[in-house]
Amino acid sequence: MTLSVGVIGTGVMGAEHVRILREETAGARVVAVCDADAGRARAVAGDGEAFTDPLALIHDHKVQAVVIASPDATHADLALACLAAGKPVLCEKPLAATADQALRVVQAEVQLGKRLVQVGYMRRFDPAYVEMLHVRQSGAIGEAVLLHNTHRNAAAPDWFTGAMAVTNSFVHEIDISRWLLDAEPVLARISAAPGGDPLMITLETDRGAVVSTEVYMNARYGYHVHAQLVGRDGTVEMAAPTVTLTNHASQHGHAWPENWVPRFRDAYRIQMNAWVRSIAEERPVGASAWDGYVATAIAEQVATALQTGNPVRLDFGQRPDLYL
Amino acid sequence: MTLSVGVIGTGVMGAEHVRILREETAGARVVAVCDADAGRARAVAGDGEAFTDPLALIHDHKVQAVVIASPDATHADLALACLAAGKPVLCEKPLAATADQALRVVQAEVQLGKRLVQVGYMRRFDPAYVEMLHVRQSGAIGEAVLLHNTHRNAAAPDWFTGAMAVTNSFVHEIDISRWLLDAEPVLARISAAPGGDPLMITLETDRGAVVSTEVYMNARYGYHVHAQLVGRDGTVEMAAPTVTLTNHASQHGHAWPENWVPRFRDAYRIQMNAWVRSIAEERPVGASAWDGYVATAIAEQVATALQTGNPVRLDFGQRPDLYL
Amino acid sequence: MTLSVGVIGTGVMGAEHVRILREETAGARVVAVCDADAGRARAVAGDGEAFTDPLALIHDHKVQAVVIASPDATHADLALACLAAGKPVLCEKPLAATADQALRVVQAEVQLGKRLVQVGYMRRFDPAYVEMLHVRQSGAIGEAVLLHNTHRNAAAPDWFTGAMAVTNSFVHEIDISRWLLDAEPVLARISAAPGGDPLMITLETDRGAVVSTEVYMNARYGYHVHAQLVGRDGTVEMAAPTVTLTNHASQHGHAWPENWVPRFRDAYRIQMNAWVRSIAEERPVGASAWDGYVATAIAEQVATALQTGNPVRLDFGQRPDLYL
Amino acid sequence: MTLSVGVIGTGVMGAEHVRILREETAGARVVAVCDADAGRARAVAGDGEAFTDPLALIHDHKVQAVVIASPDATHADLALACLAAGKPVLCEKPLAATADQALRVVQAEVQLGKRLVQVGYMRRFDPAYVEMLHVRQSGAIGEAVLLHNTHRNAAAPDWFTGAMAVTNSFVHEIDISRWLLDAEPVLARISAAPGGDPLMITLETDRGAVVSTEVYMNARYGYHVHAQLVGRDGTVEMAAPTVTLTNHASQHGHAWPENWVPRFRDAYRIQMNAWVRSIAEERPVGASAWDGYVATAIAEQVATALQTGNPVRLDFGQRPDLYL
Repeated sequence: MTLSVGVIGTGVMGAEHVRILREETAGARVVAVCDADAGRARAVAGDGEAFTDPLALIHDHKVQAVVIASPDATHADLALACLAAGKPVLCEKPLAATADQALRVVQAEVQLGKRLVQVGYMRRFDPAYVEMLHVRQSGAIGEAVLLHNTHRNAAAPDWFTGAMAVTNSFVHEIDISRWLLDAEPVLARISAAPGGDPLMITLETDRGAVVSTEVYMNARYGYHVHAQLVGRDGTVEMAAPTVTLTNHASQHGHAWPENWVPRFRDAYRIQMNAWVRSIAEERPVGASAWDGYVATAIAEQVATALQTGNPVRLDFGQRPDLYL
Repeated sequence: MTLSVGVIGTGVMGAEHVRILREETAGARVVAVCDADAGRARAVAGDGEAFTDPLALIHDHKVQAVVIASPDATHADLALACLAAGKPVLCEKPLAATADQALRVVQAEVQLGKRLVQVGYMRRFDPAYVEMLHVRQSGAIGEAVLLHNTHRNAAAPDWFTGAMAVTNSFVHEIDISRWLLDAEPVLARISAAPGGDPLMITLETDRGAVVSTEVYMNARYGYHVHAQLVGRDGTVEMAAPTVTLTNHASQHGHAWPENWVPRFRDAYRIQMNAWVRSIAEERPVGASAWDGYVATAIAEQVATALQTGNPVRLDFGQRPDLYL
Repeated sequence: MTLSVGVIGTGVMGAEHVRILREETAGARVVAVCDADAGRARAVAGDGEAFTDPLALIHDHKVQAVVIASPDATHADLALACLAAGKPVLCEKPLAATADQALRVVQAEVQLGKRLVQVGYMRRFDPAYVEMLHVRQSGAIGEAVLLHNTHRNAAAPDWFTGAMAVTNSFVHEIDISRWLLDAEPVLARISAAPGGDPLMITLETDRGAVVSTEVYMNARYGYHVHAQLVGRDGTVEMAAPTVTLTNHASQHGHAWPENWVPRFRDAYRIQMNAWVRSIAEERPVGASAWDGYVATAIAEQVATALQTGNPVRLDFGQRPDLYL
Repeated sequence: MTLSVGVIGTGVMGAEHVRILREETAGARVVAVCDADAGRARAVAGDGEAFTDPLALIHDHKVQAVVIASPDATHADLALACLAAGKPVLCEKPLAATADQALRVVQAEVQLGKRLVQVGYMRRFDPAYVEMLHVRQSGAIGEAVLLHNTHRNAAAPDWFTGAMAVTNSFVHEIDISRWLLDAEPVLARISAAPGGDPLMITLETDRGAVVSTEVYMNARYGYHVHAQLVGRDGTVEMAAPTVTLTNHASQHGHAWPENWVPRFRDAYRIQMNAWVRSIAEERPVGASAWDGYVATAIAEQVATALQTGNPVRLDFGQRPDLYL
């Protein structure tokens, strides 16, 4: 009853997934690790097998399920390979580098007629977001009318270019806002501060609720994600992500993490446990391939609004029955 | 050296101004109170004189300075009468019911060549906003790039109609944002939740900083005003407006006030002390007639964007030399 | 109807009282200021008269009421002189350097048969403490059973010696605890950290409620006063004394003041307004001479427990009818 | 490499340990469950074996390690049986109903010459306590001089009698304070509110630091555990144990849990993962049998101070070499 997992990629997230599988996940073991750098693959693999070819890992008979944590540009093809091999896959976000590629994964899965792909939008497993969803669903704050998101990175990676604030960062808010509100964005407005950072993006949804998001790639002081859901009868928002407070050198408060890894450590762990269990129980959880496609499709269209300054109507087609 | 003040209007704000002048203001006394209801005027006047005609109060020789707290529609004419009489006046916001009327007050003051009008945008004296301004000016958070405002009323007054969320409530954010950022709005975008409440309004400014404001007239849970100023090196925001926290019945937290009076009690007191002192020292403080005009002019133009859904370019003319 | 006030002492507190009287107090003016340094007295006196002899100030016919802010050792004699002159006096805490001296002031006032002395335990006017009292009196937290006090100074003044942590600092908690709980301490226990700083002092009261106080003279990080009142049905405590929060350099939070002046600025202002009004209305407010005596008497007895390490029973005699 | 665990007891904690082992623990499986109620044992056992005799479970050859979560009175004898069988055991706190019984476990383990017993003082694995320890060890707040603990239960269990507030609840603070401060208590003082609830207990330690603890069995509003560690250069304390904040019905804040299970869910999970790993690595973690004995011994002695009202010197003998 122990799931044999192969992990592709041994960067920050790949190594973290391996650690979580080994130390904090029930019912799983790491049997294979793949990296273009053979030494690195061996170092991370432990008593599992080291691969340099991801397709070899995917096709290896002892690998029952796959985690994709390789560079973004490889996601779609590897996910397609997993589908072809009939193996469940947890693919880091984004599902693909473009909406077109993401749609190919959706189409392949629809063809297969069975959901095997989970996209690693881990915020859906973050205890704070989960509690916000429960509060909305409980009716305690009434109908949701507004969602405020703040997404601040300490510094953009040096490989970031123009629209990546939207296509690589804001995709998180697209996914979590759809999930929190159970609504689809239909129109986007965008304003940019000098230099294009930060951005203020407003989405109007098919249910009427409005989503307002700050995306700030170079906030400097730290990594800070916040959300507040506003209803007719009240609001629910994230508390500060800290377990201690200090008084020191004239200051009271808490420290910010440098990046998303400590902030979402619990989310990654819970996501992995849920994914492993979902395979045993054959009940998909988390973001589907469709969700992955929609996030990327909306992001691409929002990015065009950056150029024109005009509101843009969003369009991403009909949800296939497989995802209802 | 004690300033003799006449107060026009004895509603919530008029009565509060009289109380502040009597109990918490140095160097002033209330010598006259005016209300259409003579009995009410006498009850509030104490040992001052009661008037039913505001112009009689303004022209009375023992009245050295005037506070206008009568209905909005009367503000412009009474302010003009104070200018004609050469008496300093603290006029509750808005300065006038329309931008055209407000502009007439500006023109009369420019003609006079001397600033006598202060508009009661009391937030400029709120300790939290003042500290936010000081933090920005200190350079501690670097260049300001974004300002998030939240303006929530528990319930809209029953005399509120469509655009008043903009022209009566959002004017506060227009004024305080200009003051905090030392910048002028040049473009507005607006999205509305179902029923037109809440609104999300984005202003772009001539310095590039973006202002994002939620205006929610029926937030139900309480009166809640918040602002966060985002800079290149950090942020500064309002703390919760409370002096105590409780644990009771499974809940930790604090209560919200029902309306703006308790929230801005300190601001009203400090504004009054500053106004009285500014007259003795002949150095105007607070929002000028020009500021009052600009807030109303922008609000009127933003309100039109509510109809079209399109971005609107803002235009309110050149600031006269008197206000430089 | 304007009260003519003479202020004795122009140190930190004396100068602050003069400022408050001039800028933030209704119905009062400063007509005399006294300091041993004639130049300093003149500088602070403004258009009032400068004195170097406090008794001359007290007896000057234009002085209607006196504020004592001179060194602690002079308080009792000056308060006695005010009583002899029949003039209301606001005396900075402590009322006297010893319980015996404080008792002499009480006895003189009882002899006079009229309350003229208010001791400047300003915390009774602090909005947070006032709200805590109201919450207790409202019944919202049920019977009060415990009071936690934290009293931290950034650094002890260099003239501080052994027991002054108790007789000069802890007296504040003695006074405010009696006032918050409406109860009298009957027994004290004390434990000291290495070097005698901080101290943990437990008081048991005649109503059963327990008072637990940390007194820390050299907390270094800042000036920090906190209190939490625990009842049968809940608790009420002070919120952080700040109006803004910042994110900067990996930290979220707020700054601590260096000393009590900014922390209790509102309390000092409100105390002064209440004192001036109480004279006009002939209704004493604040801490009485009796309260001043009891605080000092208990502090002296608690200080002895520091030596023995044993619990000490507290005794300060019967409250005279004048103070019922 | 998967550890086969037997769990004794299926009450709140026993069932929770089984759930944690199954859903959130890497490298373990539940092979046996014991309860006096055979049906209950079977229901919880899943595909493991059900026992009604705990000794049979302990001696069963497929059981490699044991979790004891049966009633307190049984702990010592079952721990002794595990030692006799040479099997690692995680025993819920307290280790024994009396200090004498706990000492017998220590002596048996010393005789064995090998540490097999871990006592379930789970707070040592709570992220907030762990971070507080790290902050102290980092030197950021300087030498620790004071520790404030608050331990509030919503309501005492109905089987609670007099001293159990000390022997069953306060034992947690004894253990965590020794661990946080790396110091041993040498003297205790205690004051009680009316009805003996809450208690204020002060411990002085061999390093000079003072520990101040409120133990409140019937705080009504919720389950609330807090600690603040005070050093020469600053403090570190627990943040509110919540991931969301709400605004609703005039209130801002968060909810309190009803009891310790949700508050310490992470601690129990992390403890279990650490225990399983510690067995594989043969490196004991967590509270030892000696720690379990000391907590109970101190609690017994503190309880006597409740009777006399006098300070009590604490004595619990020499730590055996096995625990150095």
